[in-house]
Order: sequence, then C-alpha cells, then structure tokens
Amino acid sequence: MIQTPDIQRPSKALIDGLAGIGSATAAGELYRLGVRDLNIHGPVAWTRGQSIVGPALTLQFMPKREDLYGADEYADPERQLHRHCLYHTQPGDIVVVDARGDMGSGIFGEMMLTYFKGRGGLGVVINGCIRDYPHCKEVGVGLWLQGVTPNFHTQTNLMPFAVNVPIACNNVLVMPGDIIVADDDGVVVVPVALAPELVKKASEHHEWEEFSKIKLSQGGDLRKYYPLNEEAQAEYQQWRKAQGR
Amino acid sequence: MIQTPDIQRPSKALIDGLAGIGSATAAGELYRLGVRDLNIHGPVAWTRGQSIVGPALTLQFMPKREDLYGADEYADPERQLHRHCLYHTQPGDIVVVDARGDMGSGIFGEMMLTYFKGRGGLGVVINGCIRDYPHCKEVGVGLWLQGVTPNFHTQTNLMPFAVNVPIACNNVLVMPGDIIVADDDGVVVVPVALAPELVKKASEHHEWEEFSKIKLSQGGDLRKYYPLNEEAQAEYQQWRKAQGR
Amino acid sequence: MIQTPDIQRPSKALIDGLAGIGSATAAGELYRLGVRDLNIHGPVAWTRGQSIVGPALTLQFMPKREDLYGADEYADPERQLHRHCLYHTQPGDIVVVDARGDMGSGIFGEMMLTYFKGRGGLGVVINGCIRDYPHCKEVGVGLWLQGVTPNFHTQTNLMPFAVNVPIACNNVLVMPGDIIVADDDGVVVVPVALAPELVKKASEHHEWEEFSKIKLSQGGDLRKYYPLNEEAQAEYQQWRKAQGR
Amino acid sequence: MIQTPDIQRPSKALIDGLAGIGSATAAGELYRLGVRDLNIHGPVAWTRGQSIVGPALTLQFMPKREDLYGADEYADPERQLHRHCLYHTQPGDIVVVDARGDMGSGIFGEMMLTYFKGRGGLGVVINGCIRDYPHCKEVGVGLWLQGVTPNFHTQTNLMPFAVNVPIACNNVLVMPGDIIVADDDGVVVVPVALAPELVKKASEHHEWEEFSKIKLSQGGDLRKYYPLNEEAQAEYQQWRKAQGR
Amino acid sequence: MIQTPDIQRPSKALIDGLAGIGSATAAGELYRLGVRDLNIHGPVAWTRGQSIVGPALTLQFMPKREDLYGADEYADPERQLHRHCLYHTQPGDIVVVDARGDMGSGIFGEMMLTYFKGRGGLGVVINGCIRDYPHCKEVGVGLWLQGVTPNFHTQTNLMPFAVNVPIACNNVLVMPGDIIVADDDGVVVVPVALAPELVKKASEHHEWEEFSKIKLSQGGDLRKYYPLNEEAQAEYQQWRKAQGR
Amino acid sequence: MIQTPDIQRPSKALIDGLAGIGSATAAGELYRLGVRDLNIHGPVAWTRGQSIVGPALTLQFMPKREDLYGADEYADPERQLHRHCLYHTQPGDIVVVDARGDMGSGIFGEMMLTYFKGRGGLGVVINGCIRDYPHCKEVGVGLWLQGVTPNFHTQTNLMPFAVNVPIACNNVLVMPGDIIVADDDGVVVVPVALAPELVKKASEHHEWEEFSKIKLSQGGDLRKYYPLNEEAQAEYQQWRKAQGR
Repeated sequence: MIQTPDIQRPSKALIDGLAGIGSATAAGELYRLGVRDLNIHGPVAWTRGQSIVGPALTLQFMPKREDLYGADEYADPERQLHRHCLYHTQPGDIVVVDARGDMGSGIFGEMMLTYFKGRGGLGVVINGCIRDYPHCKEVGVGLWLQGVTPNFHTQTNLMPFAVNVPIACNNVLVMPGDIIVADDDGVVVVPVALAPELVKKASEHHEWEEFSKIKLSQGGDLRKYYPLNEEAQAEYQQWRKAQGR
Repeated sequence: MIQTPDIQRPSKALIDGLAGIGSATAAGELYRLGVRDLNIHGPVAWTRGQSIVGPALTLQFMPKREDLYGADEYADPERQLHRHCLYHTQPGDIVVVDARGDMGSGIFGEMMLTYFKGRGGLGVVINGCIRDYPHCKEVGVGLWLQGVTPNFHTQTNLMPFAVNVPIACNNVLVMPGDIIVADDDGVVVVPVALAPELVKKASEHHEWEEFSKIKLSQGGDLRKYYPLNEEAQAEYQQWRKAQGR
Repeated sequence: MIQTPDIQRPSKALIDGLAGIGSATAAGELYRLGVRDLNIHGPVAWTRGQSIVGPALTLQFMPKREDLYGADEYADPERQLHRHCLYHTQPGDIVVVDARGDMGSGIFGEMMLTYFKGRGGLGVVINGCIRDYPHCKEVGVGLWLQGVTPNFHTQTNLMPFAVNVPIACNNVLVMPGDIIVADDDGVVVVPVALAPELVKKASEHHEWEEFSKIKLSQGGDLRKYYPLNEEAQAEYQQWRKAQGR
Repeated sequence: MIQTPDIQRPSKALIDGLAGIGSATAAGELYRLGVRDLNIHGPVAWTRGQSIVGPALTLQFMPKREDLYGADEYADPERQLHRHCLYHTQPGDIVVVDARGDMGSGIFGEMMLTYFKGRGGLGVVINGCIRDYPHCKEVGVGLWLQGVTPNFHTQTNLMPFAVNVPIACNNVLVMPGDIIVADDDGVVVVPVALAPELVKKASEHHEWEEFSKIKLSQGGDLRKYYPLNEEAQAEYQQWRKAQGR
Repeated sequence: MIQTPDIQRPSKALIDGLAGIGSATAAGELYRLGVRDLNIHGPVAWTRGQSIVGPALTLQFMPKREDLYGADEYADPERQLHRHCLYHTQPGDIVVVDARGDMGSGIFGEMMLTYFKGRGGLGVVINGCIRDYPHCKEVGVGLWLQGVTPNFHTQTNLMPFAVNVPIACNNVLVMPGDIIVADDDGVVVVPVALAPELVKKASEHHEWEEFSKIKLSQGGDLRKYYPLNEEAQAEYQQWRKAQGR
Repeated sequence: MIQTPDIQRPSKALIDGLAGIGSATAAGELYRLGVRDLNIHGPVAWTRGQSIVGPALTLQFMPKREDLYGADEYADPERQLHRHCLYHTQPGDIVVVDARGDMGSGIFGEMMLTYFKGRGGLGVVINGCIRDYPHCKEVGVGLWLQGVTPNFHTQTNLMPFAVNVPIACNNVLVMPGDIIVADDDGVVVVPVALAPELVKKASEHHEWEEFSKIKLSQGGDLRKYYPLNEEAQAEYQQWRKAQGR
C-alpha cells in the first residue's frame, strides 16, 4: 500500500497574520529580506478576484516512461499518486504541482477538485493545466494555471511521481509546508522561517497611502504626495482630523 | 476561375451522436482507441461557454513569397483563397486554419465571419489570429484562437495557399471532413472512422458520478466515492431510490 | 537634479481625426503607405472595450547592473526614472514602455497609475507587466500588457534607464511623440508624418459595408455582397432610399 | 502501388550559371528583385566548406496520427514515402524536407543517404534532424540541419506524408523544382523565374573589390576604398596596370 | 556530515554487451520494446567521436533560494552537493545532471572534471553548461552539453540539491543506475530491465547491410538492395563467397 | 554629415592587466564584487581558441521602420551607421552589437571585417549574425555570434540606429568603453570601475592548483587535494621543493 508523507503545517496564527498581505507586498518584502524572486512565473489566476493564503501540499510529475508507468497501473486507482496528494488535504491547504510546463496534460479534473474542495482545500497552483474546465470553474477552488486542456493527466508526456517532496514550480523551489500567497497578481512562496517578518509588514496600515491616492487621483503632484513631503504631511494631518480619526 | 474541392461530410447522425460528449471525454476515449493526442495545442476558446461539434473545412496558409503573391492579386477578390474556403460553408461546418502560429496575421475579419455565420457556420479554429475582434466577438461564431491582431491576413508573413487539403494545425494533422469537437477545454479532432465508437461513449450516462460528486463535495472520502466502493454502491442504490429513479 | 526631455505633441486636430479609426484600419492603411508592420506584437488589452488615441511618452528599461543601480538609489525617489516619465503627463498622453519582455518586473503599480490618471493619462503599453493588478484595474487607465506580476519594477532583471528616447517595444521602434492607436485588436504606432493620410481614411464612411453586413448575416453571397457587385449595387441604392438617406 | 510526381528540373545552363554565386549574393539580389527573405532560417551547415546549387526535390512530413500511420505500415517498405522522394534523385538534385522543426525525428540515416549519394544527390536541407550522424558524415552528401538525433523518422511525432509538393521549410515556401543555393552561410531558395537575373549577377566579376580588400586589410580608409572614391579609383587603375591586367 | 546514496551498478557483462550498439540502435529497439522516446533532447556531443556506455550517477539542481543556500555555504566545500555526486565515481560511470536548461550556470569546471577523470569517469550529460571549457576539453571526459558559460554553478539561478535520486533531464526521467548510451547522435537512457533485450540486438551483425551499402553507394536501386530482394539475396550470397566468408 | 561619439578608452595598463584572466575568472570575481551576471548569454565563440580583452565600441540596431529608413538611404554609404561604428576603431578595440537576437540579418560581411581588422580591431560580439562567413572566418577577427546568415544587415527586420551609446546585448547592459573579456567560455563585460580589482585577481598565480590538478588526474581524493587539506599542503611543499621552485 502506498504511503506518502504529510506536511508540517505552519501555525494558524501565522497563516492568519498573512491574510491581508497580498502577493505584491509579500514579493517586495521577501526581496528586502534577501530572497530575490519567490514569485512563481507562469501560472496565472483563472479564478479572478480570489486572494488566498495557506500551506503547500506538493505534487511532482515526471516525464512518463512506459517501462515504469504501464497502462495497467490504472486498474488500481490507489496507485495514482495525484490522488494521494489530495488525501492529505486539510482545511486551508493549497496544492502546488510541478507539471513541467506541459500543455497537453490535465493534472486534475472535476471529481478531484470537488473532493479537494469538500475537504476544505483552497486552491491549486500548476505550472501546467487542468482539464474539464467548463465544470471545474464552478467548483469554487482557486485556480492558478498556465492553461486548460481536454487531455487527462498521463495522456501524453507526464506521470505523477512523488507527493510532498521539494518541487520546482518553474523558477521557484517549493518545500512542502511553505506558505503560498496567491491573488490576481500571481503566486508567491513564503518560506515559513521568514513568515513572522512578513506578518509584521502585513499588519502595518498605510493610512497615509489612502490620502495619497485621493490626492493623486485629483491630479496632485507625485513629488508632493508620494511619498508625502513636508507640506503634504501637514495636509494629511488636517485630513485625518477632518475624518475624525 | 479558381475551383476548390468540397469536403465529404459525415452523417448528421454521427455529428448529433457526439453532441454532448465534450472535448475531454473525446480526447480520453480517442487515446484508449490508440490515438495518442488529437488535441490541437495552442488555440484557446475566445468565446467562452460554447460547445460545438461539426465537420472541418480546412484552409492552409503558407509563408508569403512576393514572386508568387503580388500586391495586384488583391485586385481580383476571387483570387483570395480564404474566401473560397468559406464558399463551401454548410450549416454546422467548422473552419480549421493552419496559420503557422503567426501572431501578425489576422486570418479573418468581421465581414468574412459574418458571411460564415450567415451560411450557418459554427466556429473557426486557428493556430493564429483574427483581426477586428471588437466587432467579431458580436458575430456569434465560436472562436478558438491564439490571439488577435489589427493586421490583415497577408500583411506580414503569410498567404492563403490551399482549401480543403490535409493541414497541420500545430501538433495535429487535420483531414478535410474530420469531426471537430470544441469547448472551453480546447479543440479535439475526431477521425470519422473512430467517431461511431465515440458516439457510444457519449451516450453513456454516468448517473453514479452525479452521486459521487455530491458526496465528494460534502467531504466524502475519495477512496470510497470515486470510484464507488462496495459500501458506497449500496448508498448509491438507496440514493437512487430516494430520488425516485 | 534629473531632467528628462518632454515630447513634441502632435496637434489636437490630428489626434481627434484619428479618434474613430481603430487599430485594424490603421495597420492596414499604414501598410498601404509602405510601412510593413507597426503593430506591436505581444501586449494585449487587459482593459477590454477601450479604444484610445494619443501621443507616446516613452520609457526605456535596461538590464539591471548592480554597479550602476544600487539598492541605495531608492533612498531618493527622485532618482527613479519611471517617475520622471510620468511627470511629463498631459491629458491624452499614452505611456509606452520597453520592458524587454520581462515577466518578473512590475513596471507600474497602483500609485503610479493613479497619478497618471489624475494627470489625464489615457493608457499604458508595456512589453512586460504591471503589479498590483487587483487595484490597478479599478484606476481607469487603459492597459495593454503581456501580463501581471507581484514583483516590483527593479526586483529581478530590469532598471529604468531613459525617458522620451526612441525605444523598441518588441518588434516596433517607437519614437517619442508617435501617435498610439490601441483597442482590443492591439496597439499600432502611427508615425506623425503619416497621420494626415490616415485621418482621411478615418473620415471615410463605408455606408455600403453596413448594407453588406446585413446581407451577409442573412446568408447573402459573399461574391455578390462583398464587395458589392453590379446587382448588389442596385439593391444597395434601393436600400438607401428606403432608409431615407 | 504508390506513385509520386517527379519535378521539372531547370536547365543545366541555369544551374551552372549560378554555380559561383554563393548564398549571400543570392539573398541580397533576390531582395533587390522584390523577394524579401528566401533564406531558410534554422538549418545550418553540418558539412562545412561545401557550396552547392541544384533543384529541389521536396518531402513533407506531417504530425503522426496513429489512425492513419499504423505500426504495420513498416511491413511494406514501399509504403514509406521518404524512400519515394529519394527514388526521384537525379545527379545534382537536392532534397528539402519539412520536418516541422522536430528535434526527435531522424529523417534520414546512413542507408538512405548512401543511396542518395549513389544516385548523384548533392545535399539535403532539413528543418529537423538526421540520425546515424557518426556514419552519415562520411557519406559525402552536403548536410544542412537543425541537429542530429538517435531517433528514427517516425519514432515520435512525425510521419512522411507527401513527395514533390509545395512545402514550408520554416519561414520559406519551397516549390518542387525551385533552385537551392547552399553554403556555410545557409540555404537560399531561388525561384526558377528569377534565376536568369541572378545568373547575370553571378557572372559579374568585382575586380575592384579584390583591390579594396587588400587596401582595407592594410589599414586603408573605408571611406576611401569601399566603395572606391575618385582618388582610390586612380590607385586602382595603376594597380591593375601593375598587375598586367 | 553529508551522506548521499550510491547507485546499484548493472553487471559489467551487461555494460560490455551494449558496447557497440550506438544510440541510434538503442533508441529504435527501445521503441520496439514499448518505450516511446528515451533520447534526452537538448544535450549534444561537445567531444565528437566518442561512444560510451555506463551507469548513471545523477545530480539534481533546483532553483536557487537564498534562504536555503547562503553565500556562507561555500565556506565548507563539503556542503557542496555537486562534489558529493563525484565522490561516488567508479570506473565507467557517467554523470547525468538536471541543470534545468539553465544557460548561465557552469555545473562543472576543470578541477571537478579532472577528479572525475582520475577516478575513471567516462562522461557527463548535462541539460545545461559547463564552464572553463578551454581547459575542460583537454581533460578527456566525454561531454554532452547544451552549451558552455563562464559563470560558476550557483552564480545565477541554480543550486545543487540532491545526489543519486530520480531526475528529469529535459524530456526523460533518469533513474540512478540506468544505463547511458551516448555518441555523436546524442544520449539514450537504457532501463536496466530492458538492457538484456538490447544486448541481443547489439550482438546481431548485419553483414548484408555492408553489402547493401556498397551497392547503394554505386548507384544500386534502393528497392532492390535495401532491404535485399530475392535477386539481390542471390548476388549477396555470391559476394559473400567471393569474400571468402 | 553624420558625427558619432568616440569612446573613452581605459588605460592600456588596465587592459594588459586583464590579459590572462579569462572569462570564467572574470565572471566569478565580478559576482563576488556584487555584480550578479555580466556574462552575455547567447553569443558563442565561432573562432575557437581566441582569448581577447579590449574596450567596447557599441552599435545599436533597432526594428526597421520603412518611414525612417528608406531604400534610398543606401545611395549614400556615409549614412550607414554600422560603418560609422567601425570608423572609431583603434588597435585593441572590440565591437559589441545589439542585433536584437535577429537570425535573418547579417550585421557585418567580409569587407567590413577586413577594414576592422586592418585598423587593429580584435573581435566582434553580436547577439545575432554575420554574413559571408566562408570568407569572414579567414579575416582573423575574433567572432562571438549567435549564428550566420546570407542576408545583409537591413534585409529583414533591423536597421542600424546609434553608435557608442549604452546598449543591451541580450541580458547585459553594455556601456561604451566597458572592457570586454571573451574566450571559448563566452563573453563577459567588465565595468571599468571594477577592473582594477579584477587585475589583482588576474595576477594571482595559483601554483597549488597546478599540483592539485596533477594529483586529481592521478585519482587523488577531491576532499584531500581540492582545496588542499593539511596533509596535502605538506605534500605540496615537498613537490615545490622537488621542482626547484
């Protein structure tokens, strides 16, 4: 019987602390902490408007080799490793798949995503495709993909190979249990060890940026209002007072 | 006077029989019938939500050669072969174009697509672009494209070359008269000789999958409900009864 | 203090004259005037339904070199050249950026675009990305992009290098002050010297095409109605009369 | 029994007249005759130092489709169309193959090339690969390729489809019987109708260029010696005299 | 202290049995045994004329992450995993590296390859680059590469991550201990379980092909001499006798 | 009359000091000085075995625009900017060209390179092609190219645009007067301000590496001999003595 490892999940407090941060702030702050580029290039939001944070279950596909992955393998669904990855789902989890950029393999279809959703899964990130998109888009799981395809997962070049191991999702190494921050800007991987620093950033409220935005939208001078110069600072204080803050 | 061949259309029964199958089932079943990958990689649905089935009119573009395709060629519209392809349109037809992946050539514009629609055409599949998209999207023809462009069809690198001949649409050979199945997952080519087998598949109603989906969406165990194990089979029979089926 | 040149703007009459032309007509007519391909391949409309015309402010990014662009550069916002480009904004302007096709650099974010909008800017064209898309899409500026990213503009491979100089936006040379025509078909660059010719084209009203379209949509013969043959011409005259034109 | 058409070969005089022209002069002069780019991008010389001219036999590969090209097809070698292409070989012929840029298909191996050489074939141009390179390089046939591979021609994605039909070899349309000029700079297609003009060019002897080259190699001024200005013209006449020409 | 697993080497008899087979025969026969494509696309022979067979040591690179691979890591050479891979070298071994196609990382340099050669290593296969090529080419190790670079292995995007684990070298999964067959045609992976079948193929001597080649090179008919038809069979028997075989 | 700026050349001492360094050491040491990647990806050595150092003359090509670069431009050779770049040649100079990766434009031919050589030019680096390679390879100028082509420089997509301005040669910004180090590993750009640091590195003679190499080539332990451990240090001292050093 196949046994695959579970992940070590970060504390709920850590996840909650990152809830509002957004991928853009996460990417910028991680850079300032010395990690150059943890944005996964390639997958884009297919479910616009979602913004999620959660730990990564990882699933690794490898180039298919007929001597290792026979047609009969399918006789026993339990030997299909992409199912095993989903078995580990806990509420709030996000699945990240290395599908090797293949545009002819649909990693998951409607039934797999329905199960994942039923277990509380939040979203999937694939450097590749899903299939069954006409139905999958209704399931409610967040989708960051490079595309869709009618082909099933092992139809052409790939086979599922390992669960909850370190994977490369295009340009980024993803460790099982890393925190994923995903929204319409894309997907950023947050190493657990750096997450507490990011939580601090996430909690900062830039009230003055709100003021800046109003001024800029009215034709205000960028040199004056972003960042606020001395004169604008004074205006801002008056504005705050006027707002009763 | 230019004469181009028409196609031999499969029977209406065959087309109707494939109506509900969807590209995902078509791709998977064709694989099981021994044809590895008949999904045309590249073109994606620009008219979301459509699902069409019909025979392929084919149109082949070739790299433009100024010694063979002069500027004066345009003086006589009848010499433009992309028009001739459309002349063959019968209700239910789908045009498949080898545009060689060129992103600087708009194969059809509003007038051509309006004519095609007027004749009963269902959709076009192009490994390339159309132009005039702001108007074309209103025409009502299904569009599977790699993109759009303001350029006209012979502006940069291409010229229309042949009608209703075998073409390569990216990774797939398309024979004139092959059946096209296209939806939001993409485009699959169904060889006429294999279509009867697919019709059988299309007619199977997987009522138990409906039950599975409900259970999975409620957090049911994938190992129990997909496929149904013995215990789940019993539950399913009860569910059917309860539904009055 | 950094000084960057402004552009010489074409007359308002010229811009207004091109207002209704659309990128497809612009591309085709420029070709007939001897300029092969002034469509910028790559950037696509991320704000569907907009159609804009205006002079180009240009912004050039170069590969980042740490010996020339230090981390401390950011200490003084005034040294950031992408801001300087926006300082030149006048109502109706369009910013065109050579971002070298880089998918890991977000050229502008919400604050920059808000300022640009506040100054009357119409749109931005980038052979690359913006960041902060969840907020940027609300700003109201037209966006022609290759994608979005959470990364900031100098996070990975690029640095802003020059303002209002000739740039290559993928396959097209853009001179500061060139006229940009952008809509859902894409982006076309109109050299100022050729603009008067295009204005003439833009003012031609093809009333007969309206008639053609009606006929074609009703299943009319392409050979008869596009272009109109003698018989169709007669029908068209009757139609006009019937319309009271 | 399979019958494939032969080509119409240009006169020997025409071929001989182009013998010394070289692909660089051919490309430049064809441009001046109004044909923009007849250089086949992609294939490079794998047999350095050869310079050949001859008519094109063409061979078209298409994406493999298992329903059309069974494994049993090989039972009868006569059904293999790449053999049929070679059957047409006459002394001086050049084979041009559309192999669709596929890097996993070896179009010809040692035996096929040995036969081609035995029949007087000069060279092959493939937008793809040969196999058996360790032996093929000894055969003596000129090779313009994108690479080599151990795979045989129909192992992965391709099948031979047609002989002596118009093909696209990457960016260039090649008509059966077109004249091929190939050397270390690459491959240029010469339309037969334009060949007589090129023959004239090929026969011009630029004696003054020889003089220019000597001067430039000695540090002479480019502005003076290429092209020759008035002063240099005088020097050149003296040089000629001194050479006894 | 870092410990990495060694590989299980196939018997010397198995390796010896494959000695003369060549990558072309290996690829073709593996296909006939049901494995579609075990040729590693990408790496090409940089040391022409070598033909090697041996078991694969594998080395996996991953995208560099600064939080996991610090600059200080280098303080202790023992922490560099690419060294550990070489520590396992036994005479006849071949190193296969997943370098993710990166053209800015030189996986090995002169010292590493000299050590590998000193230990009896035969060759390296990298879907990427080495550095120090001016010296490396003299070391005597077979090189199958995508290119060379002056950059060191972790300078840009990569870090060594694991030794003797399953890796994907472009389109092929390579298991530690798989047999590598490499020559000027490229690199083929032979699964150990299928090797005995291949050994049989390698031992077949196609004497008649020698005869065919002579005949074809003299202008003989392909239809008669390859394969030999009845008439040619008789000629072949006479030729054998004449040769005293 | 066209005037283009000359470059400011670094001192001969600086150039001489870098003579033996090689691109691999230059790349590695520049990284340690904080500049991540100054290796120009793409161009490879077409003249194997050369190793050159010299200041960069730069030449920028831009996408061709027929309204700015007419056919008549050629009437006056003095308007061709690629000539002007060469006019600045002084002994030891290296020309670096941004040819935008275009594989259908031959930037220089035999005459231009002969002139460049006559003036003392050392080499050219092009992210693109030259033409006339059969003759150019004899000229004696070092060539780092992405390929060769029969097409002339403005035949397809490019036109020369500026001389001795900052250019992007693929992934690297090159300033006029930067020092170029090129050999068989590739091309590295050395900023003049960092050159003195590199000169120090270049002058270090790693005599112990010579000893290491001997030991490793004899099967010595990498852990002992590279770098030298205490025991190996002692052996090394004895070896030195034995060598009479």
